[in-house]
Amino acid sequence: MRSSHQFVRNNLLRSHTAAKSLSQSRSAPWQRSYSSKAAPALSGIDPSKLTITPTTAPKELIPNKELVFGKTFTDHMLSIEWTASEGWFAPRITPYQNLSLDPATCVLHYAFTCFEGMKAYKDKEGRIRLFRPNKNMERLNQSAARIALPTFDGDAFTKLIAEFVKKDGSFIPNEKGYSLYLRPTLIGTQPTIGIAPPGSALLYLIASPVGPYYPTGFKAVSLEATDYAVRAWPGGVGDKKLGANYAPCVVPQQEAASRGYQQNLWLFGEEEYVTEVGTMNLFMAIKNKETGQNELLTAPLDGTILRGVTRDSVLALARERLVPEGWAVAERKVRMTELAEASAEGRLIEVFGAGTAAIVSPIRNISYKGKVVNCGLKDHEETGEVALRMKNWIEGIQYGEEEHEWR
Amino acid sequence: MRSSHQFVRNNLLRSHTAAKSLSQSRSAPWQRSYSSKAAPALSGIDPSKLTITPTTAPKELIPNKELVFGKTFTDHMLSIEWTASEGWFAPRITPYQNLSLDPATCVLHYAFTCFEGMKAYKDKEGRIRLFRPNKNMERLNQSAARIALPTFDGDAFTKLIAEFVKKDGSFIPNEKGYSLYLRPTLIGTQPTIGIAPPGSALLYLIASPVGPYYPTGFKAVSLEATDYAVRAWPGGVGDKKLGANYAPCVVPQQEAASRGYQQNLWLFGEEEYVTEVGTMNLFMAIKNKETGQNELLTAPLDGTILRGVTRDSVLALARERLVPEGWAVAERKVRMTELAEASAEGRLIEVFGAGTAAIVSPIRNISYKGKVVNCGLKDHEETGEVALRMKNWIEGIQYGEEEHEWR
Repeated sequence: MRSSHQFVRNNLLRSHTAAKSLSQSRSAPWQRSYSSKAAPALSGIDPSKLTITPTTAPKELIPNKELVFGKTFTDHMLSIEWTASEGWFAPRITPYQNLSLDPATCVLHYAFTCFEGMKAYKDKEGRIRLFRPNKNMERLNQSAARIALPTFDGDAFTKLIAEFVKKDGSFIPNEKGYSLYLRPTLIGTQPTIGIAPPGSALLYLIASPVGPYYPTGFKAVSLEATDYAVRAWPGGVGDKKLGANYAPCVVPQQEAASRGYQQNLWLFGEEEYVTEVGTMNLFMAIKNKETGQNELLTAPLDGTILRGVTRDSVLALARERLVPEGWAVAERKVRMTELAEASAEGRLIEVFGAGTAAIVSPIRNISYKGKVVNCGLKDHEETGEVALRMKNWIEGIQYGEEEHEWR
Repeated sequence: MRSSHQFVRNNLLRSHTAAKSLSQSRSAPWQRSYSSKAAPALSGIDPSKLTITPTTAPKELIPNKELVFGKTFTDHMLSIEWTASEGWFAPRITPYQNLSLDPATCVLHYAFTCFEGMKAYKDKEGRIRLFRPNKNMERLNQSAARIALPTFDGDAFTKLIAEFVKKDGSFIPNEKGYSLYLRPTLIGTQPTIGIAPPGSALLYLIASPVGPYYPTGFKAVSLEATDYAVRAWPGGVGDKKLGANYAPCVVPQQEAASRGYQQNLWLFGEEEYVTEVGTMNLFMAIKNKETGQNELLTAPLDGTILRGVTRDSVLALARERLVPEGWAVAERKVRMTELAEASAEGRLIEVFGAGTAAIVSPIRNISYKGKVVNCGLKDHEETGEVALRMKNWIEGIQYGEEEHEWR
């Protein structure tokens, strides 16, 4: 199909005639696109050009106890348009409002979308903190490059996020466990249905005040190992935070729920390697069969799992604080049968998911081929010790109780 | 993450509080969802409820020679809203207009989108014809069920498409090779970012007048075999027409183009099976090494290739019209090395892509591991005989020159 471009102008989107330059060499092209950035003639994101149009109809704050993840949003949104011919336009903070999109817009047909999940926290002194935003900016750029969306200067966008969070700071609850969930989103906006690199795009950010994932303390979940669908593949896009990875996850999730399991567990290949749980990374604490040493294990970044920021934080804290206690920490492939064997032999200490929403999510058991694999918790326990310590360490940094380079 | 629902009302979208029922049994759940349809209390699509709001600003027709695929659209659009609590709303034909979408709308974040490509033709008598619309309806329902979007009565939607095509019939050029490209699209519209089955959706159709894919006759293309990325895999969603399958195809396509190849060729697995070309199915005509018989081969529907309507038509016509001439026709896996060997031994007769846009697309050669595999055309030829006959047969049916059950 031949690509094409057309003009459209409305209150939130511009699209200009444009052609995207192609990168020239062979392997892993999206890595190169990312590092090469835009051509010099095009404008980068410029925080000094930010304009703010305050809302004239401020929303009422919702009581902390009634907050639901991703249901209500703050007064404003941040948006930055891009065209292939001009680069990034001046950033704008405007009242939260609908996008006006041509029905031919390429994101609606071909899933030109990638996003991030981040949180802003208020510390004891009421100061607003972000947690490792550079990791999110790095990943969003990698995701964008993989689907021919424009890359950008992560530091400049982080500055704008900070401005936005200050503007809507009143929506961040003053209570530990509460935060403002931030959703940076980058979509292709070209209003033509030829399959081609989008000639225009919109980078925007919306924010939703959220409560603790476990308001009454941890509640360990049960998983169903999915044996009829595969989330990702080497050479595929499962390691990028693309919209394309999410819609196909919902039916297996529903299926697990219909049989009483809170999440599904993704296995990979004939070896049935344990990869991810629902939309979180997975950690397993196992006593080594030969040496008796405690090991904290998680799947390696081989292209089939998401490059989780919380995963990275758990690994770093484990290496810093568990290894001196005698633990081993490893990123390696673990077969589902290895997990089942450790459970049967009483060597499975605990298992937990890790992600931005819950930080950690303890797992009680896994349904696998009609059997239930117990994940090490006693009946009265809702979390293992490692998951609990990780949550406390990470929250301590997020809420500024511990000074750390990540906040 | 917990799912949630909220109310919003605007000129083109409704979203109601709703919970979707879960199907109960185990394997291939999306197949069942499709066959079980919606719960009886919910409204199905009802063509008798169609309302038509004609445009007050009709567009000028574009001269045939200036038409570009998917760039300009007709005066109207067809849309039908759905909510989990009420089912399908009354269908509407309205002026072509922007959609007003909350920035939290789930299609923008999680790629809840699937679509079809169809064409409407004018025959010699000026009557409007559709080509095998039941196949598109079947596939759109299968795609929808796989990503937890609502399924629908394909016959009812086809009736509405016919009404729409009558309304905008003046946009269908009166010239063979020209047609009206129809784009049915189904998107999730729930304005919350919890990952869950969308509680609301929009089925809509837009249409773009298009010219022949090869305005001056066939032009054989060159392909680059992609060895660094994988389009689809067993247990994945590569056999569904989901938006999610398209955005990740653009960079490999750009890479091929940057080295002078018009399309990329997707291989799969260590065996490097030949699967699809760009966004088309692939056919290979090879003389069998042992028997000397001519064989028309294409990849089987094993979940890694799209269930193409043109693919199905080519196979059916080959079985009906080539087999009596002594050809064998087979859906089987073909290794790239097998193709290269047939070429080297002078047994590769021709290779072509098949899809709705081009019908067939002859292939001159394939770049594979630094070598060029010649696909059987002589230097002065732009198509092989099988591709040419297939195009003539299919166009003959599409434009009503041959009476056939498919039109």
